Amino acid sequence: MTDTQPISSEQAAREQELIETVVASFDGAPDERLKQVMRSLVRHLHAFIRDVRLTEEEWNAAIAFLTAAGHITDNRRQEFILLSDVLGASMQVVAVNNEAYENATEATVFGPFFVGDAPVIDQGGDMSFGAVGEPCWVEGSVRDTAGRPIVGARIEVWEADEDGFYDVQYSDGRTAARAHIFSDADGDYRFWGLTPTPYPIPHDGPVGQLLELVGRSPMRASHLHFMVSAPGFRTLVTHIFVRGDELLASDSVFGVKESLVMDFRPHAGTEATPDGRDVAGSTWSDVRFDIVLAPAG
Amino acid sequence: MTDTQPISSEQAAREQELIETVVASFDGAPDERLKQVMRSLVRHLHAFIRDVRLTEEEWNAAIAFLTAAGHITDNRRQEFILLSDVLGASMQVVAVNNEAYENATEATVFGPFFVGDAPVIDQGGDMSFGAVGEPCWVEGSVRDTAGRPIVGARIEVWEADEDGFYDVQYSDGRTAARAHIFSDADGDYRFWGLTPTPYPIPHDGPVGQLLELVGRSPMRASHLHFMVSAPGFRTLVTHIFVRGDELLASDSVFGVKESLVMDFRPHAGTEATPDGRDVAGSTWSDVRFDIVLAPAG
Repeated sequence: MTDTQPISSEQAAREQELIETVVASFDGAPDERLKQVMRSLVRHLHAFIRDVRLTEEEWNAAIAFLTAAGHITDNRRQEFILLSDVLGASMQVVAVNNEAYENATEATVFGPFFVGDAPVIDQGGDMSFGAVGEPCWVEGSVRDTAGRPIVGARIEVWEADEDGFYDVQYSDGRTAARAHIFSDADGDYRFWGLTPTPYPIPHDGPVGQLLELVGRSPMRASHLHFMVSAPGFRTLVTHIFVRGDELLASDSVFGVKESLVMDFRPHAGTEATPDGRDVAGSTWSDVRFDIVLAPAG
Repeated sequence: MTDTQPISSEQAAREQELIETVVASFDGAPDERLKQVMRSLVRHLHAFIRDVRLTEEEWNAAIAFLTAAGHITDNRRQEFILLSDVLGASMQVVAVNNEAYENATEATVFGPFFVGDAPVIDQGGDMSFGAVGEPCWVEGSVRDTAGRPIVGARIEVWEADEDGFYDVQYSDGRTAARAHIFSDADGDYRFWGLTPTPYPIPHDGPVGQLLELVGRSPMRASHLHFMVSAPGFRTLVTHIFVRGDELLASDSVFGVKESLVMDFRPHAGTEATPDGRDVAGSTWSDVRFDIVLAPAG
C-alpha cells in the first residue's frame, strides 16, 4: 500500500513463503472458526509488516507499547479497549455486527466504562445518584421496526459527570451516573440524567501518548450511553450525541452517526420541569430518544 | 479472503467509509513515517475485522487475551514477544530487515531471552557458567563477504540449559549459559558451551493457551543464539540449529533456515577434547560455525 522500497523477486518469494508456512501451522486447529480467524490475522499482520517494511526499532517500540498498555490496564482501566477505539477497530466491529436493519436505531461503540450491576430506577427516577452536572430529562419509547411498543425492555444508561469522569474513574468506589430502567406498559421510559458534556478519553497512558504523537485530540463528543435489550430483539449498544457539539466531527473513537445526534433543548431554571421536580433554579435540558430494536438473529 | 457472508453494497460502503475516516485522522501527524505506519496499520486491521466478520464476542476475547498477556509480562517474561514469535511476525520483521546479501550469514529471530550485560570470556572459555548440559566445543571464524577476517568482532552467545530453561527463567537471579567473546587477530573464535537441546517456549500463559487451542506445539528446535557486531558491518542476530533434530520442520517460532543447520559431532567421554579439557568422562560435542557479516547500510 505504502511500500516505496523495491525488493527483489527472490526476497518477495522468501517473505511470501514465510507467510504460507505460518498459515499452514494452523492446519491442525480443531476449531474451524479459530483456524479461519488466525489464518486471516497472520495474512493481514504480515501484509502490514511487509507494506511498511517495519524496522526492528519500530517492532521494539510496538512491543514496548503493548507492554505499557498491559501494565496500565486493571479492573478500572482498559487501555486495550482505548487502543481499539482510537484505531476505529471497535467501531468497525460494531459495523460488521450491526448491519443496518430497516428503521432500527443504529449502534455505536460500547466503550470501556460499562458496569454490569448498576442500580435499577423507576420511571422518572434520577440516574445521576449525586454525580455533578446539569439535570437532563430524557424520555422516549422502545418499539419494534413495525412501531409496536416493546414492554419491559431493559434500558441501561451511563455517562460521565460534568467534570468528564465516569464513577469508576474515581478511587472512592462510588456508583453514580449509571442505572437501568425498564420500559413501561406502553413501551415508554423517562428519567433524569445529566446533560452530556465533552471529555477526553483517559490519555495519561500509552494510547494518550500515541494520540499526542500523531496530533490527534483525545476528546470525545458529548454523549449519553444506552444499552437496550429485550427477548427476541437484537441488543442495541449505542449513545445519543448533542446537536451543535463542535466535537461531532472529530470524536476520538469515531462513534458519531448522524442518526444518533439529538436535540437537547436548554431550559432556564425558572421553567417548570416535566414532572414538577424542583431543580433549585438550575438550568436544565430535555431530550427525546425513540428507540427501535431490530429482531434477533 | 475468507469472508463467505455476503453483505450489501451499502453496508460495504459504510465499512469502507469508516476506514477512510480513521485513516484521515492521521493526516495531521507531524512525523511522516509514523503517519505511514499508522495508516497502514489501520487499513490492515480493519481489513482483518471485515474479512472474518469478527464478532463482538471474539473482539472481547481478543481484549481479554491482550490484557492477560500484559499482566504476565514483566522484566523476566515477555508474552508480547512470544505472541509476535508464534505468529511468525518476528521472523517476518527479520526477513524484511535482513535481505539476503551475497554470502552473508542469514539472520533469525532474536527471541525474548537476550540480556545486555552478559560476562566476557576469553578464547576457549566456558560460557555455561555452571548451567547443566553436555559440553560443546564451538569454533569458527568471522569474515566479510570477500573472505577477509574481521578482528575484534563482538560475539554474544546465549542458550537454554539441558532442562530447557534460560538463566532468566530461574528466580535466583543467576547468570549462566550466556557470555560474549571477541574474535581474535585472525578473526577466529572458540569457546565451550552446551550442546543445544529442544525446549518449549514459556507456555503457561495466554500464548501457550492459544497454541494448545489451535493444536500447535510450543517446542523450539534445539539452537544456540548468536549476535555478532563489528563497526562497518550489519549486526547479525541468528541461531545455529542441530542437524538431525526432529523439530527442525515444526519450530514454534518459524526460526529455522537450512543454512543455519549445523553438524554437531558427538564424541565419547574417552575422546580427547580440542583444548585438552577434562570433561570427567562426559560425552561432548563440537560444531564449527563460520560467520560472514554483510556491510552496514
